[in-house]
Amino acid sequence: MALVIGAGDATGGAIARRFAAGGYTACVTRREADKLLPLVQAIEAAGGRAHGFGSDARKEDEVVALVEQIERDIGPIEVLVFNIGANVPCSILDETARKYFKIWEMACFGGFLNGREVAKRMVARGRGTIVFTGATASLRGAARFAAFAGAKHALRALAQSMARELGPQGIHVAHVVVDGAIDTEFIRSNFPERYALKAQDGILNPEHIAESYWQLHRQPRDAWTFELDLRPYMESW
Amino acid sequence: MALVIGAGDATGGAIARRFAAGGYTACVTRREADKLLPLVQAIEAAGGRAHGFGSDARKEDEVVALVEQIERDIGPIEVLVFNIGANVPCSILDETARKYFKIWEMACFGGFLNGREVAKRMVARGRGTIVFTGATASLRGAARFAAFAGAKHALRALAQSMARELGPQGIHVAHVVVDGAIDTEFIRSNFPERYALKAQDGILNPEHIAESYWQLHRQPRDAWTFELDLRPYMESW
Amino acid sequence: MALVIGAGDATGGAIARRFAAGGYTACVTRREADKLLPLVQAIEAAGGRAHGFGSDARKEDEVVALVEQIERDIGPIEVLVFNIGANVPCSILDETARKYFKIWEMACFGGFLNGREVAKRMVARGRGTIVFTGATASLRGAARFAAFAGAKHALRALAQSMARELGPQGIHVAHVVVDGAIDTEFIRSNFPERYALKAQDGILNPEHIAESYWQLHRQPRDAWTFELDLRPYMESW
Amino acid sequence: MALVIGAGDATGGAIARRFAAGGYTACVTRREADKLLPLVQAIEAAGGRAHGFGSDARKEDEVVALVEQIERDIGPIEVLVFNIGANVPCSILDETARKYFKIWEMACFGGFLNGREVAKRMVARGRGTIVFTGATASLRGAARFAAFAGAKHALRALAQSMARELGPQGIHVAHVVVDGAIDTEFIRSNFPERYALKAQDGILNPEHIAESYWQLHRQPRDAWTFELDLRPYMESW
Repeated sequence: MALVIGAGDATGGAIARRFAAGGYTACVTRREADKLLPLVQAIEAAGGRAHGFGSDARKEDEVVALVEQIERDIGPIEVLVFNIGANVPCSILDETARKYFKIWEMACFGGFLNGREVAKRMVARGRGTIVFTGATASLRGAARFAAFAGAKHALRALAQSMARELGPQGIHVAHVVVDGAIDTEFIRSNFPERYALKAQDGILNPEHIAESYWQLHRQPRDAWTFELDLRPYMESW
Repeated sequence: MALVIGAGDATGGAIARRFAAGGYTACVTRREADKLLPLVQAIEAAGGRAHGFGSDARKEDEVVALVEQIERDIGPIEVLVFNIGANVPCSILDETARKYFKIWEMACFGGFLNGREVAKRMVARGRGTIVFTGATASLRGAARFAAFAGAKHALRALAQSMARELGPQGIHVAHVVVDGAIDTEFIRSNFPERYALKAQDGILNPEHIAESYWQLHRQPRDAWTFELDLRPYMESW
Repeated sequence: MALVIGAGDATGGAIARRFAAGGYTACVTRREADKLLPLVQAIEAAGGRAHGFGSDARKEDEVVALVEQIERDIGPIEVLVFNIGANVPCSILDETARKYFKIWEMACFGGFLNGREVAKRMVARGRGTIVFTGATASLRGAARFAAFAGAKHALRALAQSMARELGPQGIHVAHVVVDGAIDTEFIRSNFPERYALKAQDGILNPEHIAESYWQLHRQPRDAWTFELDLRPYMESW
Repeated sequence: MALVIGAGDATGGAIARRFAAGGYTACVTRREADKLLPLVQAIEAAGGRAHGFGSDARKEDEVVALVEQIERDIGPIEVLVFNIGANVPCSILDETARKYFKIWEMACFGGFLNGREVAKRMVARGRGTIVFTGATASLRGAARFAAFAGAKHALRALAQSMARELGPQGIHVAHVVVDGAIDTEFIRSNFPERYALKAQDGILNPEHIAESYWQLHRQPRDAWTFELDLRPYMESW
């Protein structure tokens, strides 16, 4: 069974569909459960199994309860994907404490809570895959990205630390640096010029991102990847 | 005037003394102001000027008030050093949400609050130096260091983002990676074998760390360093 | 058609077999062509197509002639894998100029020559995949590894530079960091304790490395990976 | 005594002058000794001591002889600065094998030869400083910079490897990443718009670069820097 935290966007949805197509029951979460219905239905319509859960990834009690419930009612979590971002640029001079905190809470703290809870179960079984979705900001603190880059750097540190501690216990922890615009409604609405590159494959197709997550999960344990980057061929970097 | 946030340890104290020796009034903070008395007295006894402030670096209102008070009563902040750490290793499986949050709050969020407040003043004047103290964990998420490495990675991202945004406005933002044990009471008590290396210069002398901060501040703006590392000659890395 | 430069070791051989199994004619090289016979026969016995070539990857005229011959007689090179290493540690104090040069010549200069010649053909066609095999030393200059790390760092710079220049022209250039011992005769003979970890999947299976190369080649151009690492789950890093 | 290999440009000259001002006899090299006369005279006119040597840093026998001669006739080499670059961009498709080799030979192989020869002497004495001049290309393989980035990456690997091996033996090996245009005749002639930024401190003053080399040399061995970057405040990075 594969648990995708943050299945509200195109990437999380595609990852859930990919694992469902590969035979895994997909458990998907976002804050409002009812918004997951189209995704769950799409997976089921394609012959897969899926369950949607409303869960605030930032609340410890909710995360503990979610993992408990899933393991009890549906089965052992074999794959965890943490896919929540919060990319809101702002000058450091104008950044509010509240927003700086919330971006970290969403993009990093939620990863810690979900990663820890699932890791406890996986370690007991000696197997499992945990993938964290990263971004350009995971590796570079650009001007006006102090909050997002901080959260993403911290998430990458979490992934590295977990990989080093849990790898020898049989848990495959990986971090995927998505570097470029993704084919989403957000990009379509807010960056139409960028979106127009889709005709030339200039933005990332969520299904192709999902395929890489699937391949990571399929790697035998003698040849695990901790980190890979994904970007369109025409992206400048 | 030089403001050192987190002057409770040997490094912060040495940095304050170095800037005082260089002619700057040293404003030093830690949570309990009275514990700063020995440092303030030592600086004054050496002919320097110093002021101690009790300030919780994690509380926005306290930080805003502190910067306001210092700028009003003492003078423009020309140098800010953020020097708070919180190095507490723990298995990811046992890490509590409360501790994970507190380590970030101390080692990163405080840096954001103080950095932002001081940057606002410096940008208005078109000059100033801000130095963040980093650690090995700024660059590497080691096993059992998810919380500390997360906070330190995030702090480095903050420093990078600020350097890129504020450099062109005349503010020198730098990040110092201290890689090795420092000659402190903490190391003496908890790692006596490590401390014994002091006789061979195998642990960092806080005064030598402070000297590098001073040199960073002295760099002309055509040749600024963003990042440097400091480690004992015999340290393995 | 897939060209594997340096098919003399287990990794190069496995990569050739993987691409042959995927339907590509495998052209394989090493300095002495006759030693390639077992590999060519194994591929053919499995129903694939393979050709062996004796070619010194460090000699410009041989490389130019090889690429010319293959493109003329066999077909367009769709995949190039450069897989020559030269991991010979030595104290910097004892390293000879001859050996320092030869390690660079084998592990880097050959990559430049082959990469350039093949890139010329691929750019004219607007498509192709080039993968360079990296190592731990690609990212870290360890004590006693100045020569090998230098060559591997330079090869990674070549890969990055080619990726940035040729990506927008439709050529997928990637770099794979192999971090750990590989299941080879060399490890078996020289590091028997390491080799014994094979029973626990503690050394890399060349076929699993090869699978990652194959997956890299299969990525659609909107979601290309430049770099990934591969290491056994129990490897310390 | 301080030996500067590649004192033909503004940076090497400024470094030699800085160490001479600090009381060191400056030994300076470039391929044609007579071109060093103005530098030697300038140092002497300022009250310093200097010697010029014609030496091809790429020729092992010349390097061995140079170090032998200096140690015998002038004194122990306490500081070595390797400062030869060869920044010549070119498309990978057009890069010649001869140029690719020569750039590596100048910018990396010369560093190996000089570094090794001097390190032998320093290790015997248990002290010394070796600084390698890096560039943006030391960390990033940009499009059209395969040759230069390869040489600079390799030089950085050399520096790292030497630092790790020789640090515990008392030798301080450091690498300085100069990221930006330097105030040189080359920039003045070829990039006049860039050069015009000099009025705003937008290009690096060689004397300020030299000051950082001097500070590196002055660091006590309990707090050594391996790497620092230098760039103008207004440089984009």
